[in-house]
Amino acid sequence: MKIASSKSNLMEGINIVQKAVSSKSTLQILEGILIEAGDTLKLTGNNLEIGIECVIEADIREKGSIVINSKMLGEIIRKLPESEVFIQTFENNKVLIECENSRFEIMGLSSEGYPALPQIEKQGSFNIKQIELKEMIRQTIFSASTEESRPILTGCLFELKDENFSIVAIDGFRLALRKTVLENQKGNINVVVPGKTLNEIVKILQQTEDTVQVYFTNNQIMFDLGNCKIISRLLQGEYMNYKNIIPVDYLTKTIVKTNDLLSSIERASLIITSEEKKYPVRFNIEKDSFIITSNTEKGSVREEIPSDMTGNPLSIGFNPKFFIDALKAIDDEAINLLFTNNVGPCCIKPLVNDSYIYMILPVRK
Amino acid sequence: MKIASSKSNLMEGINIVQKAVSSKSTLQILEGILIEAGDTLKLTGNNLEIGIECVIEADIREKGSIVINSKMLGEIIRKLPESEVFIQTFENNKVLIECENSRFEIMGLSSEGYPALPQIEKQGSFNIKQIELKEMIRQTIFSASTEESRPILTGCLFELKDENFSIVAIDGFRLALRKTVLENQKGNINVVVPGKTLNEIVKILQQTEDTVQVYFTNNQIMFDLGNCKIISRLLQGEYMNYKNIIPVDYLTKTIVKTNDLLSSIERASLIITSEEKKYPVRFNIEKDSFIITSNTEKGSVREEIPSDMTGNPLSIGFNPKFFIDALKAIDDEAINLLFTNNVGPCCIKPLVNDSYIYMILPVRK
Repeated sequence: MKIASSKSNLMEGINIVQKAVSSKSTLQILEGILIEAGDTLKLTGNNLEIGIECVIEADIREKGSIVINSKMLGEIIRKLPESEVFIQTFENNKVLIECENSRFEIMGLSSEGYPALPQIEKQGSFNIKQIELKEMIRQTIFSASTEESRPILTGCLFELKDENFSIVAIDGFRLALRKTVLENQKGNINVVVPGKTLNEIVKILQQTEDTVQVYFTNNQIMFDLGNCKIISRLLQGEYMNYKNIIPVDYLTKTIVKTNDLLSSIERASLIITSEEKKYPVRFNIEKDSFIITSNTEKGSVREEIPSDMTGNPLSIGFNPKFFIDALKAIDDEAINLLFTNNVGPCCIKPLVNDSYIYMILPVRK
Repeated sequence: MKIASSKSNLMEGINIVQKAVSSKSTLQILEGILIEAGDTLKLTGNNLEIGIECVIEADIREKGSIVINSKMLGEIIRKLPESEVFIQTFENNKVLIECENSRFEIMGLSSEGYPALPQIEKQGSFNIKQIELKEMIRQTIFSASTEESRPILTGCLFELKDENFSIVAIDGFRLALRKTVLENQKGNINVVVPGKTLNEIVKILQQTEDTVQVYFTNNQIMFDLGNCKIISRLLQGEYMNYKNIIPVDYLTKTIVKTNDLLSSIERASLIITSEEKKYPVRFNIEKDSFIITSNTEKGSVREEIPSDMTGNPLSIGFNPKFFIDALKAIDDEAINLLFTNNVGPCCIKPLVNDSYIYMILPVRK
């Protein structure tokens, strides 16, 4: 193999495929990046849960392939000058990397042992703007469970019904739901994508109107960004029937400014240490006042924010972290806070449409 | 005590005095900030090695004093809106902090048990621009020892002889020396300031032409920035006679660009892991070529940089970290590299004056 490519193109490709490379694996070859020079230059990372391949611009002078330790390759390319980089392989997997007056000789691994990415038979698909998918994932992923006791909840539900696409995350105490309409597309898809995969994909998706094509099989999903493809296994099992747990009628409604509520809850939670989960932040909502309080061994906090309640006055306690996570994900200036009663969940909804729902269960005390 | 001050003034003061507050101390009171409202509002942090006091603008409505946990006070003030903050104390060291619609009640500690900062009898002093002292510390501190086996070398020597002021740091393998001339001042001072103190002071000193007044006694040093005073103990003992160990005659001299040398050594060190200290980076200097190489189990690197040697050709090995640290501290575009022979130190000096010397011992192999 003998190729020439720019430092910046190589670096961009390495940064992306590294997201699928294990830094510590029992298989040394999985700590490497597969470099394949055929008609194009392709980089691949694969930790057997998620695989990423990237095609980058390069001048292929001799076809071939090699696996190079991902950390070392990344460090070397990062430190090279902004110039053309030559990579060449020799007998016994020796690799030569040259750039201006720098010359590295390192040992690679044979590409023969590298596990191929699974082939996706494209059973179903839809496309969506990268920026929109990125935002939808960012605005739901934090509600996925991190506990392996119910593995299915460590993923996010991707649900496509006709032209309506939703992402849902539930950890047993809270729910996050984001919806959008995919115009001129139809489908019927119901799959659960691992949270780990989405945490990497959200970093790879760009703030651009360019589309990403999403393909599904029964147990795989592929995100095709054009030059870059990300393949992940899906979680198997039945997802929670989330529609049944969202209340329909609310007896206490109020509109608040997102940042007012966020800042007040953040301050009220300052005297609550993470070990003191028994202490909730309490909302006391009356016709013309919304008081947020907390009381712990460290002291007490009282916050008041403007609000405009209709319905029943209410006193209810919540884990502040769940509100802080949800409020940070919301871009709207103001939101609807909707309650049933002091043992029922709080739902956060937009003022004008139904593009999201955040539902948070209260803390009984 | 009852005071009013702006959030930003309080935050600035807290950020500074926190640098002298232990986050974990066996004495709870040392984890606090002393707030004293007299004719002015004064904040104090003191970990018994270094003490910092800051006077901030405030409206004193009732004199008094209290100690508040530093971490909690910092977190509360940081999260308050940009507005006026009221702090008031009540019986049993209860503290009320109010700002707009936020109200915190927390427990403070009596200021009676707080250890007073030592009084400095001003035996000697000089003044220097903050930016100049900040740079001089930054450019030497990394060469101080971090090993307690020779405690005196964990500090930096502050030496004033007539109008010449130097800071020197030595760790047994390398030396850093920065000099300046303090115009219209004279003195004779020779003290060793703890590295820990200097690491905090370098953060507090501003990039400004404003002066800092430095006072000494036999065992204390005080940096007086006007609104803010930093007091530290000095290290006791005789500092190494550094002048005798710097070579006077050099048999190999070359001029290189600082960044060329830095980048090449950084690349050559990529294949050297921190555990592999036995592998040096090797310089091969000939009349018209300067080759930098490294060889480890991971592979080999060869770098070439432009240079213009006079004197004897030389092949010599160094710990790359020592060169990287020194070269990163140097702002000059080009430097003199000076050698005696292949077992003697390398000295880095400026092209035009003698404002610094970095001396690095070779690795014998």
